[in-house]
Formats: sequence, structure tokens, C-alpha cells
Amino acid sequence: MDTNSNYLAKELARLGIDVFYLSSVGDNLTRIQDAIRIAASRSDLIILTGGLGPTDDDLTKQALSNVLGLPLYEEAKEVARLNNFFKKRGVKMSLNNLRQALIPQGAIILENAIGTASGIIVNKDEKYFILLPGPPSEMKHVFEKQVKPWLKANISTSRDYLHSHTLKFIGISESRLNFEIEDILNNNANPTVALLAKNGEIHCRLTAKVKSQWEFEMLIDPVKKEILERVGQYYYGDDDISLEQIIGKMLTEKNLTLVTAESCTGGMIAQRITSIPGSSEYFLGSIVAYANSVKENILNVPREILSNYGAVSKETALAMAEEVKKVLKSDLGLAITGIAGPGGGTEEKPVGLIYIALVGYNINVCKKYIFTGTRNDIRWRSSTWALNLLRRSIEEL
Amino acid sequence: MDTNSNYLAKELARLGIDVFYLSSVGDNLTRIQDAIRIAASRSDLIILTGGLGPTDDDLTKQALSNVLGLPLYEEAKEVARLNNFFKKRGVKMSLNNLRQALIPQGAIILENAIGTASGIIVNKDEKYFILLPGPPSEMKHVFEKQVKPWLKANISTSRDYLHSHTLKFIGISESRLNFEIEDILNNNANPTVALLAKNGEIHCRLTAKVKSQWEFEMLIDPVKKEILERVGQYYYGDDDISLEQIIGKMLTEKNLTLVTAESCTGGMIAQRITSIPGSSEYFLGSIVAYANSVKENILNVPREILSNYGAVSKETALAMAEEVKKVLKSDLGLAITGIAGPGGGTEEKPVGLIYIALVGYNINVCKKYIFTGTRNDIRWRSSTWALNLLRRSIEEL
Repeated sequence: MDTNSNYLAKELARLGIDVFYLSSVGDNLTRIQDAIRIAASRSDLIILTGGLGPTDDDLTKQALSNVLGLPLYEEAKEVARLNNFFKKRGVKMSLNNLRQALIPQGAIILENAIGTASGIIVNKDEKYFILLPGPPSEMKHVFEKQVKPWLKANISTSRDYLHSHTLKFIGISESRLNFEIEDILNNNANPTVALLAKNGEIHCRLTAKVKSQWEFEMLIDPVKKEILERVGQYYYGDDDISLEQIIGKMLTEKNLTLVTAESCTGGMIAQRITSIPGSSEYFLGSIVAYANSVKENILNVPREILSNYGAVSKETALAMAEEVKKVLKSDLGLAITGIAGPGGGTEEKPVGLIYIALVGYNINVCKKYIFTGTRNDIRWRSSTWALNLLRRSIEEL
Repeated sequence: MDTNSNYLAKELARLGIDVFYLSSVGDNLTRIQDAIRIAASRSDLIILTGGLGPTDDDLTKQALSNVLGLPLYEEAKEVARLNNFFKKRGVKMSLNNLRQALIPQGAIILENAIGTASGIIVNKDEKYFILLPGPPSEMKHVFEKQVKPWLKANISTSRDYLHSHTLKFIGISESRLNFEIEDILNNNANPTVALLAKNGEIHCRLTAKVKSQWEFEMLIDPVKKEILERVGQYYYGDDDISLEQIIGKMLTEKNLTLVTAESCTGGMIAQRITSIPGSSEYFLGSIVAYANSVKENILNVPREILSNYGAVSKETALAMAEEVKKVLKSDLGLAITGIAGPGGGTEEKPVGLIYIALVGYNINVCKKYIFTGTRNDIRWRSSTWALNLLRRSIEEL
């Protein structure tokens, strides 16, 4: 599954560079060369990802060298960098890795701080070729740190460029949101507005062709305002900001600490919260109480609650939130219990039934939801809605 | 994000059809025509997805008609089908939809039971062009019901078909694995062998052109045996089986229970273990001890260990594993502590430094690693290596 193209097309559009063609070929020298020749015949800027590794099927540099007639040579700085990379990790560098120090003559080297393959820019016959490592995290890293500034400095951006802005919603269905803003969606002018369902969230994307950020904001602002007037209570943020980041910001601002107690999500909420650098400032920890014995002995959920109402109940969720807050000495306790499936459902308590409770700082709330989908869908969505309950509760304080 | 190509490439490989090239272009008549011309110049079978809808930017049929010189005509059966489709739903058909009844002369129509756009097969100059609707569910539906049987009947399948088998490794670098089996990788015969780095794992894919599963196994088995003789200690499983599944199977077989104590991974290990249905049989819970106060008060890590050696140390990791096992009353305790970054590193304890400890059932082990990459890479990789330490330790029992 190619995820790099999608990322690159979006980023290039933001820079005012139109992406006209995408080609994929396997690890075959002839076919890679053909693809490079065709690309060079119709585009000014060609970005290649992958094939910069140390193994014999990493052929991108060789193919480019053959097509452009630019020999590869071993760049001393790259050899030194590789030696240093392996030395730091106490690992012996294999001879294979020296292939990664080969560079076409005249190329610019793009530093990759998180992997062994540097990126490369080659300029030949007024065409630019940018080679990036294949692993998505490294590709994005090199693009962000090295390619973007280079493109801004070297490629003319005086034309209209495509700019988009995404409003993100939780707690409303796609069809409901479609109904609420149908007239705006159907008004196919500048900006265009489109909906996209994504992992239990609904994203609303506003896109416009403009000459400047200022012009973009002039076009977008009234449309955004109109949308938020109608469905603002489900909106949590824009563009690349995540629910996890927003929660981190809110907890930091209010100087509140958070802990979680998780059953069906098995640590997913804690894991999402701690995906944010610096989360140790507000997140103390979590008790994943998968077995009832842990709910009873560590979380101190009274045995009578578990036997009278069951592990998946409002009463248990509230007790878990209350107790985890006490036990881990936090301001807020967020708890979740439910049935992620595929087994374990009953008529009365079906697969997808989830209770989310939040306790502390004058908050005492428990919500019941029934989610559908695979085990993973149910776990992801319920952790999203738990984070959203937290967000809205803090907001209302 | 294009998910259609990935699906089609897999399905076609299963039918013995090699996919050599993938091209994507936007809704632009000239560029679609160019893409069709290039494809026809190098391939026998060309599959096009998308652009069969009723709107003005649905251009695929027009482009194909222009390139091949086959006029489009309004097919009466298609008009009747469309009328019927809208009548059934009580919706008035818009005139636009009649575009969907246009067909190149001589084309075969492929029924689409779940949407308004039929698929089409066109045969010209010994090349086949198959047009499929763009929405993934409709594309898959038409491919499965119509295209697959047609390909089996009309494309010579007396040929061998491509079959592949993946061996999955953890704990060895791609370049090291490449070095160990270089002769096998370079022996580009049947099967071919290729390496792929994926989220801290290395996948080794054996691919062969064969006539039957039996023949495939005959070809693969000696190569697999040879590879595992050299690097078997890093191998954990085949194809779609996951580390989480293997661990579940092992713990169930040995009737052992597991708990985890996590610092830097923030619940990721617990979340991965509980992604498996039925994991409540062997997984009791986890303490995510993000703050030192939780390590000290709930996990009972002695204050002297924390102050003498630091939270990121062998001693703390071992104490966390020992204590979480005791506190949550389990057979095995798996613990992890480290620096996920991007901040918090020092000369002595850099970002990426991770200690993983496993205690219980005659096991008492702690490993130190230094991982690279983003915060998320480091967390994912260290959780993978923690699961692998668990797997190997149980295996060695």
C-alpha cells in the first residue's frame, strides 16, 4: 500500500506545485529506468521514493545514474556519516551499507536524521530529480526538513495554489452532517466543501485556489463561520491538530493531571495520550484492568457492584474512574469498560456496548454508547469518544 | 489515498498476471489519454478505475474512445437499467446519469449490482482494456463477480501463477540479514527472495511462479529451510500471523498469565496484546507508570533504585517487572522503561534508550536497546522488541 504519494501530493499542492502523474514500478532496473525516462519527458520536477537502502534490490540511484549518464561515486562525507551512525549504536557496519554512500555526480545531499539513507537532489537539463527514502516516517522527515525549504527557495510559486483547510468533528454522523450543511456542500464554488468519514470522526475539507494565505482566509472564514454556527458543538479542531494534542493543551493550561482506567481498550487511551511529547506533564499513568481481579483488587471496585451490575455497566465505569483517580492521586480519572467483541456479547449487552466515565474537579459523568465495526474499530472509536468526552467536559468547566 | 491498486495487484498476481506498471492521473482528458497510450504501448491488459460516474469530470470512457477511435453510443439496455435503478429508489433520474449509458462500440458490459456505473471490457488490437468504477466497494464487487471469471476464461492461465510466502524476523537488521543470505537473495531463480523492512521487523518474501500449491511448497521448502538454518533465531512466523497472535497462542498453551508495566510506551504493549480476541484468557492487565510517583507508590519500585539508577535503568526495569507481577498476581511480568523523545535525552542516556525486563516462571532477564526514529517509531519498535523478548523467553522455557 503506497501512502507516500498521498502525502507528497498534498504537500506539493500546498506549495503550489501541481502533481500531474504518479507511476509505480517494482524493483526492476529496466522498468525503473523506463519510468524515469517517461517522467522526465513530461514533468519539470520528478520525486522518486524508495530504493535507497543497502540491498541489491535498491536500484533507484543506479537507474537514475544510467538514464541521466551521471556516474555514481562514493562520497566521503556519506561514508563518514554511515560509520558514525553505526558506531554510535555499537553495531558493526556491513559492507553493503557503503552502497548508501554512492551519489550521482553533482547531487545535493539531503540529511536524514532518523535513518541510514540520505535524500538526494539531482539537476540535469533543467529537470529536477528528488530521491527520498521509502519508509514513510523517513520520507516525511526528509521532505519536511530538507525538501520543503529547498522547493520554496528554488521553485517559483507565483501561480495560484491549492490550499485546503479541514474542520474535524466527533459525535455526529456523516449523513447528519451532510444534511445540516447540504446547501454549502452543493455550492460548488471557490471554496469547495467535501466530507470524509475517518475512524469515527468526520472531516470537512474546504479547498480553494488562491494567490495568498490572506486571500485564502478571506474566502474560507465566512464559510467556516456558517458551518460552525450550525454544527459547532461537534467540532474539535482544524487540520493536523489531533484530539490528543488539544487535550494536552487544555490540561496544561488548566494545570490538571489525568489518569485512566481501561478495560476493553486495553491501554489504547493511555497510549494515545502519551503519543504527545511532553505528556508526562499532565498524564500520570493508567491501570489497565482487563481481568475482574484487577478491577477488584487494584482499582478497588466493590465486589457488589461487579456482581450486581456486571463489569460492563455504568456503576462499574464510574467506580473505576473514581478509584483510579484516588489510587494514582490525580485531578481527573477517565475510565472505560465495554465489549469489543467479536465474542462476549449478549442480547442485553451486545458487542460494541461501551461505558465511558469521567470523575474529578466537579465532573461526574458517565455515557453509554453502542459502536459497530470490527474489534479494532470498536476499540479505536470508543477511545476517540472517551478523549472527546474529556475534551468537552474540560471545555465546559 | 488509492487503495484500489493494492487490491488489484494482489488479485491479479493470484491469477498469474504480472502487474508491471501503475499510473495515476487527475480528471484531465489529455493526461488520461496520454496515460492510456503509454499503457497500451507496454502492456497486454490495462485496467482503469474511476471516471465512470455521471459528472463532467468523469472522463475515462471518452478518453478511451478518443485513443482507440471507437465512438461512444447510448446503449438501450443501460438506459433501461438506469431508469429501473432510480425508479426502485423512488428518485428522479437526472439527465446527467444518461452519460453512464454511453458505451464504446463492441464493448462488453460488466454488471454492477451495488452502484450506477457498470464496468466495461474493450478489446482492440489484441489489447484488453477493463474499466471499473472508482469507489473501492463497487470496484471490488465488479472485479470479484465479473472480471475474475472473465479473466479466468479469456486470459491464458495455462501459465504459472505467482505465489508468495513471507518469513518474518525481529532482532536482526536488514543489512545483516542481507549479508547472511546474500547468495540466496542473488540467486534470482524460482523462487526469488526479497527483503523488506517494516516497523522494526524484517520481512523476507519468497516468490515463485508455479502451477499448484504443491509445486510451490516443493520449491519453497528447501529455501526456507536454508534461510532458517542461518538466521532462525530471529524468525517468529509466516505471512499474516502477528507477534501478538503467536504470544497469545504460546501463553494459552503453557497456561501462563501475563501483566505489563509500561513507562515510555504508555500502554502500547497492553493495547497490542489485547488487540487479539480472547486475550482476557491470559492477559490480566497493566500498570502504565508514566509518572515516577506511580512507579514508586503503585509499582513499589524502591525510591533508592529510582534515585540511584534513574527511572531509565536496568534496575528500575527489573523492579517494575517483578513488582507488577506481584501486584497484579500474574505468572509473568513484562516491563519497559526508556526515553521515547524527542526531548529528555542526555549524553549518557540518549533518546531511544530502552530497557525491557521480563520476570517470572524461572525467567529473569533485562535487555538494553537504542532505537532510532520518531517518537512513534521508537515506541512502536520498543513494544515490538518487548513482545519478541517475551516470545523468545517462553520458547526457551
